[in-house]
Amino acid sequence: MLGIEFPIFAFSHCRDVVAAVSRAGGMGVLGALYFTPEELETELKWIDDHVDGRPYGVDVVMPASYAGADLGVDSPEDLVGRLAGMIPEGHRRFVDDLLAAHDVPPLAEGSEAGRVLLGWTDATARPQVEVALRHPIALLANALGPPPADIVELAHARGVRVAALASTPRHAVKQVEVGVDIVVAQGTEAGGHTGEISTMVLVPQVVDAVDVPVLAAGGIGDGRQMAAGMALGAEGVWTGSIWLTVEEADTPESARRRILSATSRDTVRSRSWTGKPARLLRNEWTDAWESAESPGTLPMPLQFMLISDALRRIGRSDASELATFPAGQIIGTMNQVKSARDVVFGMVEQYVEAMDRLERLTRD
Amino acid sequence: MLGIEFPIFAFSHCRDVVAAVSRAGGMGVLGALYFTPEELETELKWIDDHVDGRPYGVDVVMPASYAGADLGVDSPEDLVGRLAGMIPEGHRRFVDDLLAAHDVPPLAEGSEAGRVLLGWTDATARPQVEVALRHPIALLANALGPPPADIVELAHARGVRVAALASTPRHAVKQVEVGVDIVVAQGTEAGGHTGEISTMVLVPQVVDAVDVPVLAAGGIGDGRQMAAGMALGAEGVWTGSIWLTVEEADTPESARRRILSATSRDTVRSRSWTGKPARLLRNEWTDAWESAESPGTLPMPLQFMLISDALRRIGRSDASELATFPAGQIIGTMNQVKSARDVVFGMVEQYVEAMDRLERLTRD
Repeated sequence: MLGIEFPIFAFSHCRDVVAAVSRAGGMGVLGALYFTPEELETELKWIDDHVDGRPYGVDVVMPASYAGADLGVDSPEDLVGRLAGMIPEGHRRFVDDLLAAHDVPPLAEGSEAGRVLLGWTDATARPQVEVALRHPIALLANALGPPPADIVELAHARGVRVAALASTPRHAVKQVEVGVDIVVAQGTEAGGHTGEISTMVLVPQVVDAVDVPVLAAGGIGDGRQMAAGMALGAEGVWTGSIWLTVEEADTPESARRRILSATSRDTVRSRSWTGKPARLLRNEWTDAWESAESPGTLPMPLQFMLISDALRRIGRSDASELATFPAGQIIGTMNQVKSARDVVFGMVEQYVEAMDRLERLTRD
Repeated sequence: MLGIEFPIFAFSHCRDVVAAVSRAGGMGVLGALYFTPEELETELKWIDDHVDGRPYGVDVVMPASYAGADLGVDSPEDLVGRLAGMIPEGHRRFVDDLLAAHDVPPLAEGSEAGRVLLGWTDATARPQVEVALRHPIALLANALGPPPADIVELAHARGVRVAALASTPRHAVKQVEVGVDIVVAQGTEAGGHTGEISTMVLVPQVVDAVDVPVLAAGGIGDGRQMAAGMALGAEGVWTGSIWLTVEEADTPESARRRILSATSRDTVRSRSWTGKPARLLRNEWTDAWESAESPGTLPMPLQFMLISDALRRIGRSDASELATFPAGQIIGTMNQVKSARDVVFGMVEQYVEAMDRLERLTRD
């Protein structure tokens, strides 16, 4: 369907990883979330120039529900203004106190304003889709709900397949109803936004619920897990966290070190990043939001608006104990740095070994 | 190693299920927890008479840590007395208020005293082991920590293999160090006492950490999941929840109905049953213990001592909204009643189909 050699999909916010995986015979998928439309244009142009004509994809986030969705505001700037007024003072104070307790300095005076509204609303994600569809992408993926029907039509009109992430069989059915071509059944062990049901339980349920190809996601990091995902009925696998530590990744050095030394128990499903449950590295930030003092998290996109400056301040400080980021349970097995190409080839080799072992076991 | 036809291990508290699975070519394992040594003797005698000489096992719970472990009290009766004094009055009041709010009647006057200390301590589990080893069991399994070294020796002296459940690779290594022959790598999606790491992520980590056979547990309910578990490196699978709804199971009718209609999101990992995290059917009981009014749970075995009478009262009342029980996420796919034999054979058939499909996918 997509002209790839190995059914390995690699989600990454880093263009170098996306291009390297696609060149190796998998399918790199660029997470567009952090980019303005102009930045996204630059990234995709770079990928076009470095992917040797191999297929790649783009992932956007158009949540089916979020605070402000009913305001009818089309301009991101106006939306920010309206939403900012919905953030309670007590929440701002909680964040300020937390940063003060960890001696996190304020941003330098005159420092550029951060982006407080990422591509988590229709108003911010739609321009990203428009940019993406101007490039020769093979796949448009969407998270947090079925994509709007007109976006699916637009993609199909350009010959682009549409994938959507699902964390329950019910969501998968809804997505296929709006025309999605590929369902990514993502288990709770995955990094980033994620549901409650594990990959082992979820994938067969989704395979049975829909009649389109399914990819297994969540906890997939090596060839045995790839074989397992496909044994569950998937046609391929969708991976994310494992690309955070490859040579090509632009992951900050401190985060890379944390991932390489983490165990699989060092993640937590938390609303403290975006307001919707996402699996993050467990640390003093995630703990603080679960503590007795926590005011509770705000709905998407208010939570990220609330913490956006705090995240920038933490990133520029020595308070690495507060620096969380999306990470799946698979980080427990990631303990060396390899090239993206070696990860792809190693996974395929291990998949073949796992298949050989399974065949021997079954014959006996 | 164990003389079974299919590497399917079936944990059940019901002797009929244990015998039926073993007769079908798998390995039934009786959970001894709820039985006094005398009751266990009766159950095992019955199994001996109904298992047609096929191998079966017994599962006990000897937690590595629990409240009162340091009291040096050998008699269960004395232990109950000492532990009862450690339950705060506020906790008793919370339980009383919860039951009153749901109109749960008190126990009839003169009703027999319930057992407040299940086999969750050395003092209560050890007599169960002694009974079990008087029967021709093939396997002794232990949960919640490495079994005491003398118990492992005793089992080995009788030619009985020892299995232990592990929820992290570190636990698995400790278990093999005390002589365990088989590690059951159990993911968070499993019913009952369970860790945080998913089956997909955990099994390969345990396989890489130890040099004994590993069984995959957690979320295993059909032949695709069996194939997936074995693709992850396991030699077989350990199952539990799927036996709650088979024809032979003595599951109360109301619980059976709840399981058949539940989705995979209707479970929760909660300390409200035993004081250690266990995956239970999510309902008003589990919600109450997570509410703002909750006094928090007590450590094992105090929590069960606290709630033991409450559970009996709920079981005899119409307040089924409070009747929780251990259940894994796989309950979302259990929607019809079959015989244990049909479940075993169906699983094997589906495993073979999954293997055939995988081989086709790999060739293409």
